[in-house]
Amino acid sequence: MPVGPSFADVREAQARIAHHIHRTPVMRSASLDGRAGARLFFKCENFQKTGSFKIRGAMNAIFALSSGSAARGVVTHSSGNHGAAVAYAARRRGIPSWIVVPRGAPEVKQKAIADFGATIVSCDNTLESRQSTAKALLEETGAALIHPYDNDFVIAGQATAAVELLEEAGELDLMLAPVSGGGLLSGTAIASQSLYPEIRVIGCEPSLADDAFRSLSSGQLQKNSCMDTIADGLRASLSERTFAILRPRVDAIALISEAEILEAMRFVWERMKFLIEPSSAVAVAGALFGKVSGEGKRIGILLSGGNVDVGRFFERA
Amino acid sequence: MPVGPSFADVREAQARIAHHIHRTPVMRSASLDGRAGARLFFKCENFQKTGSFKIRGAMNAIFALSSGSAARGVVTHSSGNHGAAVAYAARRRGIPSWIVVPRGAPEVKQKAIADFGATIVSCDNTLESRQSTAKALLEETGAALIHPYDNDFVIAGQATAAVELLEEAGELDLMLAPVSGGGLLSGTAIASQSLYPEIRVIGCEPSLADDAFRSLSSGQLQKNSCMDTIADGLRASLSERTFAILRPRVDAIALISEAEILEAMRFVWERMKFLIEPSSAVAVAGALFGKVSGEGKRIGILLSGGNVDVGRFFERA
Repeated sequence: MPVGPSFADVREAQARIAHHIHRTPVMRSASLDGRAGARLFFKCENFQKTGSFKIRGAMNAIFALSSGSAARGVVTHSSGNHGAAVAYAARRRGIPSWIVVPRGAPEVKQKAIADFGATIVSCDNTLESRQSTAKALLEETGAALIHPYDNDFVIAGQATAAVELLEEAGELDLMLAPVSGGGLLSGTAIASQSLYPEIRVIGCEPSLADDAFRSLSSGQLQKNSCMDTIADGLRASLSERTFAILRPRVDAIALISEAEILEAMRFVWERMKFLIEPSSAVAVAGALFGKVSGEGKRIGILLSGGNVDVGRFFERA
Repeated sequence: MPVGPSFADVREAQARIAHHIHRTPVMRSASLDGRAGARLFFKCENFQKTGSFKIRGAMNAIFALSSGSAARGVVTHSSGNHGAAVAYAARRRGIPSWIVVPRGAPEVKQKAIADFGATIVSCDNTLESRQSTAKALLEETGAALIHPYDNDFVIAGQATAAVELLEEAGELDLMLAPVSGGGLLSGTAIASQSLYPEIRVIGCEPSLADDAFRSLSSGQLQKNSCMDTIADGLRASLSERTFAILRPRVDAIALISEAEILEAMRFVWERMKFLIEPSSAVAVAGALFGKVSGEGKRIGILLSGGNVDVGRFFERA
């Protein structure tokens, strides 16, 4: 029995969420092609609603709930893009949501979640506190947990970004996506290899949070101990589910240094004139810095989001 | 005898430059619409080749030269977007170019110009030095001057951005463009009112460089004395030619404070996830801050460019 959603589930997700999300553009850049020595196709989820691809999975999972279940609302734990996505999707379905957010999370992120009408529930900044707070909430409310990646509906939703990219670009040789908990990379692999079995799927991961690299190298699920990377969206570790999906499908995990993340991010800002967050730059760096044997190839890159705090630019202006 | 290019000249420009430039996207944003209380259509010349609309006018003027004249090359004076545009267009035509640049102009801008194959000729940072240096160069080389705005081919080229915007968005109530020397605003007015005679065209100008406002209010051509605005592309003053084009066509000039420029720029970066330079933010501010009686209207906004030095963001990262 294969683990994870089937491609039929992905097609269902596509139909379910189409009217609730943007079909984001696929952008190209002569100067990035030149730097990479390849033809790059950027799927711009930075322009997606709520500023990241996370809305795809959250929307699919929430709209797949039965009416009875949905009425009791949804719960998740995330101070980042997934939290905002669940809050937005729940409002769209007209149901309550509770987002468990660690104390000390940036005010601006909490405000975005609250602006979408979610109830913020504070917890301590430990995995244990998050989990126990979410568990208590679920028991109290009867709401459904929308896990950020350990959920087949979420994975099927994330897969729709790769489907759209391939619909627009046609066949590609390589597909690069950042990897954290593995939801986006799992969906990308399922979608890409269903449409084009020859496509090589590569995960890009910060060296400072390299659990997917170690898990796939060793064949044993590993956890991150250090999570100091600037790529704040990539600090989670694979689950049993995403590990099982990725093992047979992913060609390699490319490790990216912090300096490479910043250089790739700056290169995209300066040359392509749009904002990507550090987590997206991790995948760009995979193509720019010769990590993926991409010379002369057609390479798809999932730009996961554009939620970056630009305050430091304006504070000095 | 009407001053400036005709709409037939604009259509000729469109055909002449089509294969040499990007047809840039028209983008929309629910959150900016909400803030403005209007429907906004952003013409994204920040994604244009060389990072600004200036390539349209430069390309048109340079490709309109006779072979004999073109062979002697082109000269302009500008350390900014027009300098880079002339350098790029000249290389595209395969002819030499000389760009007069004041000593002390940012290294990064000089490098961009040099990378396009132009010869940089330094001058002092005064209007007189620029003009005398350019004049000496013209006499020495027999090259053609490509003035940044006081040139009908340049104006006809700039007009093509508004044509594309209207082709995509359909009829609009208002069209907003930043105004400096008046090339973009002149082209925008000619194109817009040729396609839709009822459209109101409004120039947006920094309060700190308000010559167009004073010229159109008084009916007498005025110059800027102070040019301290952060909108570094908007420090020039109208010429007799652009003043004569704008007087009968422009409905109003909206004045924008420095704080409003920064707030509009940040709003676009954060909500639309792309980079615009301060000069573009001046036009956005016109729509966002109730300067143009735009409530409930369909408003086109020319985003002139995305060339902004993001170094300060990364230096602190």
